[in-house]
Amino acid sequence: MTIDAAAVDNSARISPENNLDFYAYSQAAPYSMQQLTDDDLLIGGSNRDEKERTIPPDMPSVRQARSDFAYFMSDELRAELFRRNQMLMACANLDVAGAMPERVGDYYNLMPLDSSQANVPHKSRTFRYQTISYKATHIRTNAVCYLKRIMGCKLPTARLYDVVEAWKKIVHANIVQLRDVFLTKDFDDEQPSIVFVYDFIPCCETLQKRHFSSNVSQLKGWANPYNLSGEDRPFSAGKGTSHTGLLAESLIWEYVVQISSLIRTLHGVPLACRCLNLSRILVDGDSKGGRGKSRVWLSGVGIADILDGTINGIVHQHILNDLQDFGRLILMLACNSIVGAQKEHLQTSLDIVQRNYSHDLKNLILHFLLPSNTSKPKTINECMPMIGARFYAQIDNLHVRGDILENELAKELDCGRLFRLICKLDALLERPEHSMNQVWSETGDRYILKLFRDFVFHAVGFDGEPIIDIAHIVQCLNKFDAGSHDKICLTSRDEQNVIIVSYSELHQAFERAFTELMNYGSTGSS
Amino acid sequence: MTIDAAAVDNSARISPENNLDFYAYSQAAPYSMQQLTDDDLLIGGSNRDEKERTIPPDMPSVRQARSDFAYFMSDELRAELFRRNQMLMACANLDVAGAMPERVGDYYNLMPLDSSQANVPHKSRTFRYQTISYKATHIRTNAVCYLKRIMGCKLPTARLYDVVEAWKKIVHANIVQLRDVFLTKDFDDEQPSIVFVYDFIPCCETLQKRHFSSNVSQLKGWANPYNLSGEDRPFSAGKGTSHTGLLAESLIWEYVVQISSLIRTLHGVPLACRCLNLSRILVDGDSKGGRGKSRVWLSGVGIADILDGTINGIVHQHILNDLQDFGRLILMLACNSIVGAQKEHLQTSLDIVQRNYSHDLKNLILHFLLPSNTSKPKTINECMPMIGARFYAQIDNLHVRGDILENELAKELDCGRLFRLICKLDALLERPEHSMNQVWSETGDRYILKLFRDFVFHAVGFDGEPIIDIAHIVQCLNKFDAGSHDKICLTSRDEQNVIIVSYSELHQAFERAFTELMNYGSTGSS
Repeated sequence: MTIDAAAVDNSARISPENNLDFYAYSQAAPYSMQQLTDDDLLIGGSNRDEKERTIPPDMPSVRQARSDFAYFMSDELRAELFRRNQMLMACANLDVAGAMPERVGDYYNLMPLDSSQANVPHKSRTFRYQTISYKATHIRTNAVCYLKRIMGCKLPTARLYDVVEAWKKIVHANIVQLRDVFLTKDFDDEQPSIVFVYDFIPCCETLQKRHFSSNVSQLKGWANPYNLSGEDRPFSAGKGTSHTGLLAESLIWEYVVQISSLIRTLHGVPLACRCLNLSRILVDGDSKGGRGKSRVWLSGVGIADILDGTINGIVHQHILNDLQDFGRLILMLACNSIVGAQKEHLQTSLDIVQRNYSHDLKNLILHFLLPSNTSKPKTINECMPMIGARFYAQIDNLHVRGDILENELAKELDCGRLFRLICKLDALLERPEHSMNQVWSETGDRYILKLFRDFVFHAVGFDGEPIIDIAHIVQCLNKFDAGSHDKICLTSRDEQNVIIVSYSELHQAFERAFTELMNYGSTGSS
Repeated sequence: MTIDAAAVDNSARISPENNLDFYAYSQAAPYSMQQLTDDDLLIGGSNRDEKERTIPPDMPSVRQARSDFAYFMSDELRAELFRRNQMLMACANLDVAGAMPERVGDYYNLMPLDSSQANVPHKSRTFRYQTISYKATHIRTNAVCYLKRIMGCKLPTARLYDVVEAWKKIVHANIVQLRDVFLTKDFDDEQPSIVFVYDFIPCCETLQKRHFSSNVSQLKGWANPYNLSGEDRPFSAGKGTSHTGLLAESLIWEYVVQISSLIRTLHGVPLACRCLNLSRILVDGDSKGGRGKSRVWLSGVGIADILDGTINGIVHQHILNDLQDFGRLILMLACNSIVGAQKEHLQTSLDIVQRNYSHDLKNLILHFLLPSNTSKPKTINECMPMIGARFYAQIDNLHVRGDILENELAKELDCGRLFRLICKLDALLERPEHSMNQVWSETGDRYILKLFRDFVFHAVGFDGEPIIDIAHIVQCLNKFDAGSHDKICLTSRDEQNVIIVSYSELHQAFERAFTELMNYGSTGSS
């Protein structure tokens, strides 16, 4: 192979530091007006007929909404999505899998989530029953689900169907959706278990774990604002003006907006959450925080109602309890202490809120935490004026997050296409069963495709050194896929033959050869 | 190649209808507990050491947030991103490109946007000057930008730097960001042009074009609520209760939230928009609408201030004008008529709003459109109580849109990795310059990699028919990339040799061979 071929298409070569970094490609390919060929100019001008066909742009480019963010997030986002895929794909090890039923209802591939062992129950504080949580896969849809098994509890039959259906209808971005409820003996118990099926949210943790498990929130001695041991302390104890462990106010408001949103949806039905506490609210991503990574979901919705077998009995009392739970939750987050919402610590906690946060936040907590003075019952809508313009901040953040994701997706779009293309090309070439057949191997369509493959992948430098330039590969494959009119010079392996051929002819040869290959089995000809 | 090899790894085969559809793969691979191999179980159990290494999950799976939406959107989203990439990549045809300067300031690859011809000015109604819009590429960053060239206008020098810097600092999800302003003679004019550089938003249109160019909004005769011809009409003319051409109220509120958000940001600085009209507000996507596709951007910000050369003079008057423009804009959208906001039609328009929309919307329009009764100046914040709970709807929609994008991205993640892997593999195998060299071709590492390539791409069925199964290819490449301990059976082309080898050994061979190839040039050995 000579250097001539490389020279024909020298715009393909890009600075060496980008050699194997595909993602840098869209940023790194400078081409000036002189280098533009007819084909580069196909889109947008007179050649309207050709425009439709020239689908793949030569360089996937990037919407420049906020490029600084887009590039900053990229690796982090990739890693995050990767961890999620990994979590979705995780399976129990053989010991654990062997100790569990192969199939429970319509679900298989069970993996316990509370413990790495099978069949270790977890005494739930919320539901009074022993529960075990599993990840499982639906047998038909392959959807990954979260199964909550409640042991030793009989399902009440009264109006149960209505209750379950009411909860299954709740679709909200901040609620883990209930998908199914069934009674099963598949766990080989003496008595059947009730299983609640929810969407599985990978890579999240509870608010409790996120904000109340670190050492910072458990200050010892006089630094702790709550006098837990009851000893005499100086007046100033725990009243330091800077509480390093406290959450950023903007983060608390992000939680307030999302939690009030889900409460509002449920109370509108009307349904009551009945599980608004730190250990039932999931929060996205890892604990590093960052923009748009404070998405929350309320989990375990409907369990209390379904175990009761009824909704309407005292739903209005439950709704009022929800509102008080909401105030308590926000207070605990604001003073970053679980004991902070206990009656005896209330004054201390409110002092912390007063000193460190805005009036709006303090008013919101007081409004929902304290009993109503008037006869008119409270509603969640009363938090809206206190949130005020913070809605705008949330919406702006979400737009930015969406832009980042769209940018990433636009970059990735072409990878899937090129991957499929290269798979088809590899499937065509060097097939062993055809190596003896002249028509199939060294002549005709397949031959120039083979030379093209050499041109794409086996480029060599001036001294014969191999060059692997992913930008060259991507550009060649894109022109090949688009059927560009650009011409390249292919050289035979013995360097005796030189063929000048356009990408468009190569593309046609490829289509013919692939169709022939696909028809090979059906016609039976060789 | 025999069938044995395929039988060793028969879980790779998937239903034939999914053969070439990569995206269906994650949904279509059922595998039961019995078929799980040691390697499938690596993650999550006892093999903690191995966990880190086994990065690629065998099947990219999907977060099940709202699967119905996710699958519904998929093709549409793909097409949308495709169109955007295409628009970003579009170039002028040769005639047009030839008639334009090769480079203007730091930008090249100019393509006129107002017309398919070069140098056709467009008389701007907003700025009183002749303008031409271009798409262009920045010479260093390769960012695609929108250039607005203003002809025949001198830049005032007084405090100009401050004004430009103030506008360049405005970053908001609903404002097209000003990136640069420069004076240039590169267009070969008798006099220099001022060029304003903004982010380029591909595939958007103005609110004017989206909602006021269809026939529906131009009802003729008595059906038109506005008596434009002034003729006598019956009392009921134009008062039909159903206006088919009217926009959905939720859509108008989406616009209200976004436009009020950007006004709020600017007025807070304080800066004034001075260009709040239908032809300056861009709206995303194509006109089919749908969830989350009503994103708007205000374009052309800062031009008026910069041409004035000052901000602070009468900014408060401009701010009040903005608020009135805002009311007028929403009124035009609500009655779906450009004449609707004219003084003589005001009563008719407000009747339409009254009959078809909520009180909140009517109040919002009246509040901003009519002059203030009190001496206290209006502010944009006063729209927040009228928007009320509609903020929640917007946030919920944006969360859903984000979930959809994340799902898509999670599916695409692996394509880029597999593409790079296959490029490296193809670069290694069948290199012509090594075909005569035994060490490099038919023995050792390269030989088993060649057999592996045959196994992956050249599978044949029972009757020798070629099988191209993208699921098989993906699974093999994933196990290969991960260095799985699964073993496969490779058969030589002459069917005389059968090699049982694990993916992990293949992976090591690949690493060695690729390193050797990369060192080939530098050491000079062959």
